[in-house]
Amino acid sequence: MAGHPPPRRRDAERNRQAILTAARTLLARSGDVPMYEIGRSAGVGQATLYRHFRAREDLVLAIFSEQLAELETVAQARRGDPDAFLDLLRTIVEMQARYHGLVDCLRWTTGAGLRQRLERAMSEPLATAASDGRLRADASIDDLHLITGMVDGALRSEHDPTARARIATRVVALALNGLTRS
Amino acid sequence: MAGHPPPRRRDAERNRQAILTAARTLLARSGDVPMYEIGRSAGVGQATLYRHFRAREDLVLAIFSEQLAELETVAQARRGDPDAFLDLLRTIVEMQARYHGLVDCLRWTTGAGLRQRLERAMSEPLATAASDGRLRADASIDDLHLITGMVDGALRSEHDPTARARIATRVVALALNGLTRS
Repeated sequence: MAGHPPPRRRDAERNRQAILTAARTLLARSGDVPMYEIGRSAGVGQATLYRHFRAREDLVLAIFSEQLAELETVAQARRGDPDAFLDLLRTIVEMQARYHGLVDCLRWTTGAGLRQRLERAMSEPLATAASDGRLRADASIDDLHLITGMVDGALRSEHDPTARARIATRVVALALNGLTRS
Repeated sequence: MAGHPPPRRRDAERNRQAILTAARTLLARSGDVPMYEIGRSAGVGQATLYRHFRAREDLVLAIFSEQLAELETVAQARRGDPDAFLDLLRTIVEMQARYHGLVDCLRWTTGAGLRQRLERAMSEPLATAASDGRLRADASIDDLHLITGMVDGALRSEHDPTARARIATRVVALALNGLTRS
């Protein structure tokens, strides 16, 4: 499913990467940043911007796809490592804190597709961690979706990036270790 | 702050209670139920309904106020009991699962007022539980808000009441005991 982009001329690919780099920075600052500001920051014209990404959703989808591809690579590289699941979970939550609000830009179908891809990437790491006794006996992939939902909920009213990162870290600490003394 | 309602004639009070009872049932089923259905289910006319509750927000506020008053009573009755905090937290989360979506009906100021009242009611139980070693050493009242936010986030996409209750229970299990094996 990850696949490779169709062959592009080198300058087209350079423009695409410049747009994505600008989008990652600007969208991490605010999910409401207008498309033309992303184009300006990337140093490309509006025509070029819209040739690569017809709508805001395509841009957000490309960013999430890239992040998922990284996650898939790490999951693959760490096959059999019982610590991989918790490390990957922390990475996912950091992404959520950074790009909070962007999920709302996605159509339901697009969001569901990414969710399934996340689930596929995380199933093996979760099973490995569980069979090594790292997780509670009843841990399941549903808990992963629950935790990302929990993080989203806790972040909802916070717009300051520093505070968001702090909240996300605390939610993970609670979700993994619990509020009660173990 | 809880206070007593101003003196009312007995039938007016009976109508008010009938409206609140109907609202609790119907709003637990769907946060979108129209005002006239609540009036009809309570067996009161529209004029009576709107004399008691001018807007949907007043009704939601009254329901949350009642629930908070119960919470305050229990917190008061169990002063010094180190188990009170976790029991009260479970009650709060059950309320969230039951009346999920109603918080969105409240103006920001009203919501903030309830939040402060919740914080006041829960501070002493939290301190008692913490000093008894029931909670992790760095537990604070901010964690309470975080957990209610986490529950809200996990419930956001689920509309079936039974599934909501199940999700809320699981979120509390994760938030209190963690996903990792303790």
